[in-house]
Amino acid sequence: MISFENDYIAGAHPKILERLIETNLESLSGYGNDMYCQSACEKIKKACKCEDAQVFFATGGTQTNAVVISAMLHDYEGVVAAVTGHVSAHEAGAIEYTGHKVLTLPQHDGKIDAEELGKYLRTFYEDINHEHMVFPGMVYISHPTEYGTLYSKKELEQISQICNKYRIPLFLDGARLGYGLMSKQTDVTLPDIANLCDVFYIGGTKVGALCGEAIVFTKKNAPMHFMTIVKQHGALLAKGRLLGIQFDTLFTDNLYFEISSHAIEMAEQLKEVLKEKGCTFYLESPTNQQFIVMENCKLDELKTKLAFSFWEKADDTHTVIRLATGWSTKMEDIKQLRELL
Amino acid sequence: MISFENDYIAGAHPKILERLIETNLESLSGYGNDMYCQSACEKIKKACKCEDAQVFFATGGTQTNAVVISAMLHDYEGVVAAVTGHVSAHEAGAIEYTGHKVLTLPQHDGKIDAEELGKYLRTFYEDINHEHMVFPGMVYISHPTEYGTLYSKKELEQISQICNKYRIPLFLDGARLGYGLMSKQTDVTLPDIANLCDVFYIGGTKVGALCGEAIVFTKKNAPMHFMTIVKQHGALLAKGRLLGIQFDTLFTDNLYFEISSHAIEMAEQLKEVLKEKGCTFYLESPTNQQFIVMENCKLDELKTKLAFSFWEKADDTHTVIRLATGWSTKMEDIKQLRELL
Amino acid sequence: MISFENDYIAGAHPKILERLIETNLESLSGYGNDMYCQSACEKIKKACKCEDAQVFFATGGTQTNAVVISAMLHDYEGVVAAVTGHVSAHEAGAIEYTGHKVLTLPQHDGKIDAEELGKYLRTFYEDINHEHMVFPGMVYISHPTEYGTLYSKKELEQISQICNKYRIPLFLDGARLGYGLMSKQTDVTLPDIANLCDVFYIGGTKVGALCGEAIVFTKKNAPMHFMTIVKQHGALLAKGRLLGIQFDTLFTDNLYFEISSHAIEMAEQLKEVLKEKGCTFYLESPTNQQFIVMENCKLDELKTKLAFSFWEKADDTHTVIRLATGWSTKMEDIKQLRELL
Amino acid sequence: MISFENDYIAGAHPKILERLIETNLESLSGYGNDMYCQSACEKIKKACKCEDAQVFFATGGTQTNAVVISAMLHDYEGVVAAVTGHVSAHEAGAIEYTGHKVLTLPQHDGKIDAEELGKYLRTFYEDINHEHMVFPGMVYISHPTEYGTLYSKKELEQISQICNKYRIPLFLDGARLGYGLMSKQTDVTLPDIANLCDVFYIGGTKVGALCGEAIVFTKKNAPMHFMTIVKQHGALLAKGRLLGIQFDTLFTDNLYFEISSHAIEMAEQLKEVLKEKGCTFYLESPTNQQFIVMENCKLDELKTKLAFSFWEKADDTHTVIRLATGWSTKMEDIKQLRELL
Repeated sequence: MISFENDYIAGAHPKILERLIETNLESLSGYGNDMYCQSACEKIKKACKCEDAQVFFATGGTQTNAVVISAMLHDYEGVVAAVTGHVSAHEAGAIEYTGHKVLTLPQHDGKIDAEELGKYLRTFYEDINHEHMVFPGMVYISHPTEYGTLYSKKELEQISQICNKYRIPLFLDGARLGYGLMSKQTDVTLPDIANLCDVFYIGGTKVGALCGEAIVFTKKNAPMHFMTIVKQHGALLAKGRLLGIQFDTLFTDNLYFEISSHAIEMAEQLKEVLKEKGCTFYLESPTNQQFIVMENCKLDELKTKLAFSFWEKADDTHTVIRLATGWSTKMEDIKQLRELL
Repeated sequence: MISFENDYIAGAHPKILERLIETNLESLSGYGNDMYCQSACEKIKKACKCEDAQVFFATGGTQTNAVVISAMLHDYEGVVAAVTGHVSAHEAGAIEYTGHKVLTLPQHDGKIDAEELGKYLRTFYEDINHEHMVFPGMVYISHPTEYGTLYSKKELEQISQICNKYRIPLFLDGARLGYGLMSKQTDVTLPDIANLCDVFYIGGTKVGALCGEAIVFTKKNAPMHFMTIVKQHGALLAKGRLLGIQFDTLFTDNLYFEISSHAIEMAEQLKEVLKEKGCTFYLESPTNQQFIVMENCKLDELKTKLAFSFWEKADDTHTVIRLATGWSTKMEDIKQLRELL
Repeated sequence: MISFENDYIAGAHPKILERLIETNLESLSGYGNDMYCQSACEKIKKACKCEDAQVFFATGGTQTNAVVISAMLHDYEGVVAAVTGHVSAHEAGAIEYTGHKVLTLPQHDGKIDAEELGKYLRTFYEDINHEHMVFPGMVYISHPTEYGTLYSKKELEQISQICNKYRIPLFLDGARLGYGLMSKQTDVTLPDIANLCDVFYIGGTKVGALCGEAIVFTKKNAPMHFMTIVKQHGALLAKGRLLGIQFDTLFTDNLYFEISSHAIEMAEQLKEVLKEKGCTFYLESPTNQQFIVMENCKLDELKTKLAFSFWEKADDTHTVIRLATGWSTKMEDIKQLRELL
Repeated sequence: MISFENDYIAGAHPKILERLIETNLESLSGYGNDMYCQSACEKIKKACKCEDAQVFFATGGTQTNAVVISAMLHDYEGVVAAVTGHVSAHEAGAIEYTGHKVLTLPQHDGKIDAEELGKYLRTFYEDINHEHMVFPGMVYISHPTEYGTLYSKKELEQISQICNKYRIPLFLDGARLGYGLMSKQTDVTLPDIANLCDVFYIGGTKVGALCGEAIVFTKKNAPMHFMTIVKQHGALLAKGRLLGIQFDTLFTDNLYFEISSHAIEMAEQLKEVLKEKGCTFYLESPTNQQFIVMENCKLDELKTKLAFSFWEKADDTHTVIRLATGWSTKMEDIKQLRELL
């Protein structure tokens, strides 16, 4: 059985495990008050080329989204997202559980459109009845999106300008940020993101860590008592070191980018094989997730030998599936897949 | 510098790290749908001697409390706890954030009293005005308590009987459960707890794991779609294996109980040293946390050589501090402390 | 200035004021424990021909929606509504504030389609990933809708059957229910609604009362301690008599239906005038709200003499406006409008 | 049957009903956008001698408390109140439902003590662990308290100074404010309250209105988009006139103060009778609520002829009851009570 089921099928990158072992017996204070958390923060700030950055850690993506969004919105505000945005569709209502509405915009290959966003925000300054509606108080984008697609630098700039104009923060969900940054088809860098967003997170769980996301507030704009808010959401680990050490390792010697590069390389090879085999791509993805449309009968055949993710029904006889690469994907896996198809 | 700051100063027990390394490259499904989570559940059920048990994993204690309590309460209900209960005092309002009040009872060395509980619950069947009050919908106890103390089996039975009488569930917070079970002064076993409580959790974070708590519903009474509720709270790890492997290891060859026993043994030695040195105990604790009252000037002297937890002000010149042992505490640490005092 | 701004421009129907005066000095218990509330409940049960009905009162529509929906949903559930449903668009996020998502379906003249509803609910039994999504736990419809349109009896039956099939309650928002029941183009009666819905409310605020909505649970299915939940939402009036007396009056000698009939009659006259004047109807509404598309320049002219509601921009030079009739609309108003146009 | 059950046993003061009738047919915009609401706001500002006041209306006390408190607190904050404060004990968890903890202080005849408050707030600047606790973000007092007692001007000043020192707002619950202001034993005026508090409300429901409370932000400090927050809580009446007209009437020709004075006069007479009959007062109340301790057998005798409120059990054979006067209390009621006792 080979698995392209997702980018979290394996444990941690070996260098992370090594560091956990090396530091295991050190006595460290809890709740993030340790030198590894501090060191990780400094390295991330540096990688972002962002002096004003404030960095915090959480364990997973849904948790991070709920904590950041609820902490930054006023009671009367909601968060604007693509209808396919993770916060809108696949977080079991975690945002609404914090009392806030997800305000949806149409998606275009998983992305929102700057012009549509501008038009939408504008109505809240023209429309007479807006006092009975939820105000847009933040813009949420994911990069890469849930479909593996990427915003261009120009697109990010446009969205950022609109957010500035209406003075609402731009939040970028980077659960798979590394794969976006290392894509062969991107012109967006980590400092660009730090520059254009008000807050974003650097995903660890899906990029080689056991768990963990690094939240970056880019303009000294972390909400007051943010640690208490993290605690209130049940998101504060007693052994904060678990997150600090992992991110410290990921941001030492470019490991985060190497892991991402490797997965992108594997994804390129995967695409070659899929193309060679005549597979129909659901859309063009420049990152580590590939979406293909398959005949159901073919899938039935494959599923005992290949682990993949069911994505959605295409029609009565076809299904969209996702194949993902990650730090542990090997050329051997690609070769085996080639033989299978 | 020696540290008795808490029971989470070190990383994971070496056997846990070993297993994480051994299994690191295995391809496993996410979100707890892997064989290690399944195996851990089975081992826990067995250790509890509880056929009807349903076991789930979460990362930390505050998170577990918030998820379990909010999932089991009706909207109009609150949770009853000692005024010093962790949910009442030290979770940054995590329970209230889910919309529920913590209804407090007096504490006696950190414990609630069965008779006072009965009297309190009774008023909701006699009092005319209860429709304007929050109904008690669950009883929360911690064992060991926040002060390291323990309920006797008889006390647990009495509380359990009262809960049964008023048909509200009894929830036991076992963040440090192992230390309670391995205390030399307890008559309570893990099967007793499974038998007397409706739901409880077995703490991992403070008993040798990197993170993780195992929630046990004992009467096939897990709330419907509990996984979705866990997700909604941001408490579902993508790499569920991290929790499954740790608990599978903790419940293999009695490791959980060995770790706990070791810490208790160390705590007994610690007590000896403290007594020998004439320290004043704040209260008598039969578990791994010891509370002593110290002169502030003495503390100022010690604090560069000894890491401890500030607990509370005793008076203008004295402070209550906590010293805790754990899996990594060594006789050497005790000896050094003896020299220091 | 004549006003067709909405159906709450005037105070209460004179008979209601009379009864408030007559009963003003009677000493009555608070919070709904008075004979007028009781009498109103009985009359409503009778009008619904529903022996199992449980009736409660609240002051306004948004409040009623939030209380009923949050009280009936489990934590992991959301409410299904048309994208134009009041709970989705115009209640400032009151539903999300209670922690629940509004799951939207397409609207067709303000209504949801039974087939689309069935298809949507079905996915939650087929889709593999539903554990990460909000479960549909209630269906919300408004009747009349926000566009004044009505479900036919057959349409209601189809929606009701689907709800029964998936065992989720059907909730009908009857903020303007009277106008639906008295429409000349309906085959739906109040007992039909009581029979087909699990819970609904009879709007008072927009049908002649000063304030007040009567919530009807039709199958002895009121949530436990519903009064406490009402109190928790700040929706319980100390002088419950204010709601009891108003609904007792509305359901004496058919006043509720007379008020509604009168407004429908006025709406028919209004439509005649609008047609005669060549106005463009935005859609065909058989109730008391009429939506027309007007040139912006024409509106500028009218707005000093006519009070209306801005509904939405049609295009750069046209606007959709709403004209509504109510208990206080007089033929004289229609005549004056005729002269104005 | 005579009734001293509470201060909301009767309908509205006749002058209020008169004004509702007089204005009934006027066409007014909804949601508080009418001239009566505006006029009422102006009159209230004037009565408060507070140029910076911003005035809003809500229907009831619990609702007002929940809206104001949740709108002014940050997520990580709770509200400080006496353990007997209405928000703490008798609002069915309405504050917690908004996600915030009620932090309790000891009560002294229903009041908090300035020194104890100062000591409590101070710990949040000294205590090391405050990041894991709910921060005090507002101080709530009721005046009169739930026991009819009053703060002196000096006491209010002290509390206000402490709030200023720690920069947290002081909120005064004035559900029965009139009775406090007209008490024969007070030195506190309405302008004093406007001056010393950051926000307070003037109770209408219990002082002659059918329903309604007037919220006063005293320092141009109303939360942004407060109307939207009110709507979100289901607290915005479509016929806002109902509240505007009532408060406009209450603040015309001193009606609010006359009503209050009358009830105080009646309460003084009531006290005389109770003293004459040798009743035991539970505490000394200078306002319209009187609390007496009675033998249960005596109460059984009285309850068919006298309506009163059960307050709490005193001991196995005695009960604390409350007798209240209001706008509709007549000397005749007092005389009848005298004969009864």
